[in-house]
Amino acid sequence: MQNFEFHNPTRIVFGQQTIGKLAGLLPESARVLILLGGGSARANGTLDEVKTALGQRHVQEFSGIEPNPSFETLMRAVEQVRRDKLDFLLAVGGGSVIDGTKFVAAAVPFEGDPWTIMETHGRNVRSALPFGSILTLPATGSEMNNGGVVTRRSIQAKLAFSSAHTFPQFSILDPTVTYTLPPRQVANGVVDAFVHVVEQYLTYPVHARVQDRFAEGLLQSLIETGPEALARPEDYDARANLMWIATLALNGLIGAGVPQDWSTHMIGHELTALHGIDHARTLAIVLPASLRVRRESKRGKLLQYAERVWHVTEGSEDERIERAIASTRAFFEDMGMGTRLADYQLGAEAIDPIVTQLEAHGMTGLGEHRDVTLATSRRILETAL
Amino acid sequence: MQNFEFHNPTRIVFGQQTIGKLAGLLPESARVLILLGGGSARANGTLDEVKTALGQRHVQEFSGIEPNPSFETLMRAVEQVRRDKLDFLLAVGGGSVIDGTKFVAAAVPFEGDPWTIMETHGRNVRSALPFGSILTLPATGSEMNNGGVVTRRSIQAKLAFSSAHTFPQFSILDPTVTYTLPPRQVANGVVDAFVHVVEQYLTYPVHARVQDRFAEGLLQSLIETGPEALARPEDYDARANLMWIATLALNGLIGAGVPQDWSTHMIGHELTALHGIDHARTLAIVLPASLRVRRESKRGKLLQYAERVWHVTEGSEDERIERAIASTRAFFEDMGMGTRLADYQLGAEAIDPIVTQLEAHGMTGLGEHRDVTLATSRRILETAL
Repeated sequence: MQNFEFHNPTRIVFGQQTIGKLAGLLPESARVLILLGGGSARANGTLDEVKTALGQRHVQEFSGIEPNPSFETLMRAVEQVRRDKLDFLLAVGGGSVIDGTKFVAAAVPFEGDPWTIMETHGRNVRSALPFGSILTLPATGSEMNNGGVVTRRSIQAKLAFSSAHTFPQFSILDPTVTYTLPPRQVANGVVDAFVHVVEQYLTYPVHARVQDRFAEGLLQSLIETGPEALARPEDYDARANLMWIATLALNGLIGAGVPQDWSTHMIGHELTALHGIDHARTLAIVLPASLRVRRESKRGKLLQYAERVWHVTEGSEDERIERAIASTRAFFEDMGMGTRLADYQLGAEAIDPIVTQLEAHGMTGLGEHRDVTLATSRRILETAL
Repeated sequence: MQNFEFHNPTRIVFGQQTIGKLAGLLPESARVLILLGGGSARANGTLDEVKTALGQRHVQEFSGIEPNPSFETLMRAVEQVRRDKLDFLLAVGGGSVIDGTKFVAAAVPFEGDPWTIMETHGRNVRSALPFGSILTLPATGSEMNNGGVVTRRSIQAKLAFSSAHTFPQFSILDPTVTYTLPPRQVANGVVDAFVHVVEQYLTYPVHARVQDRFAEGLLQSLIETGPEALARPEDYDARANLMWIATLALNGLIGAGVPQDWSTHMIGHELTALHGIDHARTLAIVLPASLRVRRESKRGKLLQYAERVWHVTEGSEDERIERAIASTRAFFEDMGMGTRLADYQLGAEAIDPIVTQLEAHGMTGLGEHRDVTLATSRRILETAL
């Protein structure tokens, strides 16, 4: 096991009828900015519930945080907070709204150009406004970690940051608010959480038994829960399990003390940037191909994954690995998403521009061994055709 | 899944050579009281390492916190802290030292009789001194939770308390400091952690997939790790896994959103009080008998436990349950501890006094269904003869 630090101070309030608990989670005197996405929280009644729970507090709203939240939009929220001397942020939405809220929280007290927060990946953050979240979309895990991704449209830069100061103070997870999500977003959440776990698990063995068992437990639970959550939108237990799995998939616990990969995410980000493909769908394209191309360096963990997650114990090592990868692909396709570039009308001509972008962004040595060169990324994309 | 809150702000610093990180975890100006147990930390060099890491800070020591820490002893530490205006507590030891430090932390600023902290189980605690721990014995999980048990010898009362204010700010877990532990204490730690998990897992199903998988992962990891940790004291990975498993077994995570039992602990406490049997050994006596007696109300989870933890899939339901219980008993015996009252020179005559004590302590409706009456406890003890 590798040395590690683990610290996660976010309070999780989980369950039915929990939005009313908001009242006890912020100061009576808080001057609150509610941050929102595209309007679903307003349409489905969640926003009304939140405002009722906030009672007599001074409350303002800021709507329109985009998927892949933009610096330009978020800076308007920063201005509003500074101008009106608001002192508590409340994200009501999914990962994009929560990521954006983290940036606003760090930018408000920041002296100097807030874009440098992104350029330093958060290392220059010394404080942040307190904030909480009401999660409406299980997927990214942002509700219980300190990281965020922000895009600056004017210079086409998409950067990640994190800071000890940008953990939510609390996150309220009420599975019933997810009943009205479009199936496409539910499927995206399942696959996003699955690949978050894989990036922290499917590397090489370091005798970290608990981390392996927890990761395998999350994957097994997703394989059971994903189809239920898609088939029966108002199945409380399915939605509850999905919500808690997605949170635990990226709250620092399973990644503590083990090597991590994240190359599937890096290659996927370029697919989103160039072709607008949903984040989760880019992962569904890249992961099966990446596992095939990199099977030698991942052999030990691939065999463990085959046995413990997919119960594949018969056949040669290579046959077992092949079956585990095929099962992974089949799971993503059961979630309703294509797993090949061709499913998104992309052919061999799409590969050069992606590799060029990876090079431009310095993505020349990815993965747990830093051995996913541009040539390897190219082979992965060719395998995904 | 049941509604729950989860909040655990303790920072874990895990790994080899991590005691030196202490310097960055307390204020430069801290006036520190180091709390110690019976002397092993002094003998094996851990205390010297700690004092070196604390550098120029004002440091005092308080030695002699007993197994089952006593109110009388801890109040002497409270006096020392108050008298010398110390402001940071550092526990160096196992669960008893950390439990005791939590009490001292709450008692120092407490106005009124500190024993009322125990009488209210911590509900009247409004603040506590900051404190951290250097864990030397993996077992109780106290290093990453907010609970403690304190005994008042003068009135033979042993009470538990917890408070939002009594989480350690940090705990340093260096597996190498456990190399010199006596085998008996290692075995006790393995069984203590195992039963902590079982108390939160082996109840009845509530469709909490992640909690079940995590609990099963901890149990499987203990079954693999326990014998290694006993056989090879300087096997780093075995000691590292044991340390992290024991912490995660009782940090609130696997118990969030599920029913809990804890009757094995309650019956076991009386065995310790009356006969001085090590806490873990009382659990090894009570648990197999309790599972046999209560097999009907635990049937669903017992079958799941048999299949997922012990890989028992053949035979009738009752045969599978019986094999799972037998495997549990065999595991405890492999750890070198007797699992029957007779192994501790206790016969049928011992049962009446235990039941009398349970009644005196109000333990008349234990377990996840509150249906472990005194009659059921008696049957459990008879089954454990």
